[in-house]
Amino acid sequence: MLTQDIKIVMVGTTHPGNIGAAARAMHTMSFSRLALVDPRCDIDEVAYARASGADHILDNCEFYERLADAVADCECVVATSARRRSLSWPESDPAEIADWLGRQPEDTGAAMIFGPEHSGLSNDELQLCNRMVVIPTNPDFGSLNVASAIQILCYAIFAGRHPQRPDADADTREPRANSAEVESFFTHLQQNLERSGFINPQKPGQIMQRLRRLYLRSDLTRNEINILRGILSSMDRHLD
Amino acid sequence: MLTQDIKIVMVGTTHPGNIGAAARAMHTMSFSRLALVDPRCDIDEVAYARASGADHILDNCEFYERLADAVADCECVVATSARRRSLSWPESDPAEIADWLGRQPEDTGAAMIFGPEHSGLSNDELQLCNRMVVIPTNPDFGSLNVASAIQILCYAIFAGRHPQRPDADADTREPRANSAEVESFFTHLQQNLERSGFINPQKPGQIMQRLRRLYLRSDLTRNEINILRGILSSMDRHLD
Repeated sequence: MLTQDIKIVMVGTTHPGNIGAAARAMHTMSFSRLALVDPRCDIDEVAYARASGADHILDNCEFYERLADAVADCECVVATSARRRSLSWPESDPAEIADWLGRQPEDTGAAMIFGPEHSGLSNDELQLCNRMVVIPTNPDFGSLNVASAIQILCYAIFAGRHPQRPDADADTREPRANSAEVESFFTHLQQNLERSGFINPQKPGQIMQRLRRLYLRSDLTRNEINILRGILSSMDRHLD
Repeated sequence: MLTQDIKIVMVGTTHPGNIGAAARAMHTMSFSRLALVDPRCDIDEVAYARASGADHILDNCEFYERLADAVADCECVVATSARRRSLSWPESDPAEIADWLGRQPEDTGAAMIFGPEHSGLSNDELQLCNRMVVIPTNPDFGSLNVASAIQILCYAIFAGRHPQRPDADADTREPRANSAEVESFFTHLQQNLERSGFINPQKPGQIMQRLRRLYLRSDLTRNEINILRGILSSMDRHLD
């Protein structure tokens, strides 16, 4: 299913700034459906200021008196909590929920429910949910802002949709140097360091091994080899 | 390494609310070290209100005039960006960065850098970093609030911690060089390449940026810095 089909449901929210910040958080992660159940504030200029451009989400926001009505058309209903409950409710972490939602067919209705700022969801509200997701937090301070909780869960679901990119340690936009090119560089480097006297050919020590280890783990590109070879050639001219 | 050892560095922040929200986000994920570089606002009552109980992080916040000073004692320096740069800097996603930081030895100094609200980090500031992390966002709306970006990254690191295993990329048996040592090497390298004529100070081109990118992504050890500095000193004697 697509992120834009997942409804974010805020129950009993008291601060307009949190509704605006939630809209911004949703939009950054390609979510667009916001529903408010029994809000205790208006969507005012503070909300729009914090939405910071995600106005259309506030403009198109749905209103409900009861949570049951907000999720009536949903097959997948996920409650959120920053802390564990005494009630033994099946708990998932954000990655598991992202995975579970990602495996649903495209026309599934889904909702993620966020409780009031100071109390969270009631046990009656939890009873409407298929899953409960617990965001792991500091055991001594689980006080996540509600818009921050929405940001984390929307991120986990959005990021879970993206196949992992190629190795970030290597520069993938430039062609890598092949082994022959890297070896030619090492030969040139060694000759240069012997000529300059930095390496004594009779007692070479571990220097070349250490330099090999450094440059080999760096996954050198062809451009980088050219620069390093250029530096060596410039040194050669000074040694001549 | 532990989350409480990772410094969160905010550069040129303009809104006290964002500093307070960052402190709260950090505390929920067991981070505690906040540094401000050239802040454009005070830590006022708005900041404390948004910190919502994470007051000790604001009380103990460190102040710096320059980013280089804030990260001087750090071996692992991570820049954050919501968007890709034209300069091809190696990019990681939050899970990859969490994994990389998790594999560092316990006494490693680490910093995650967040730029000003409206502009992000400058290219000069990016040049100080070993890695750049890009939070995946809606291609049509990448406008993540800075405290939300901090929340996502702190969450990814806190949630992603797993038992330490050997790092294939870096030699973890040797101490890493910190940012100040790496910067001294770059200064020495540039002076040397200018003296030898390889770099024309009037038209330096992209050579130093490319060499920085190569060596920064290599996570240099102190021993490697010593060898590279030794080679430069040996070249200096030939240039004299």
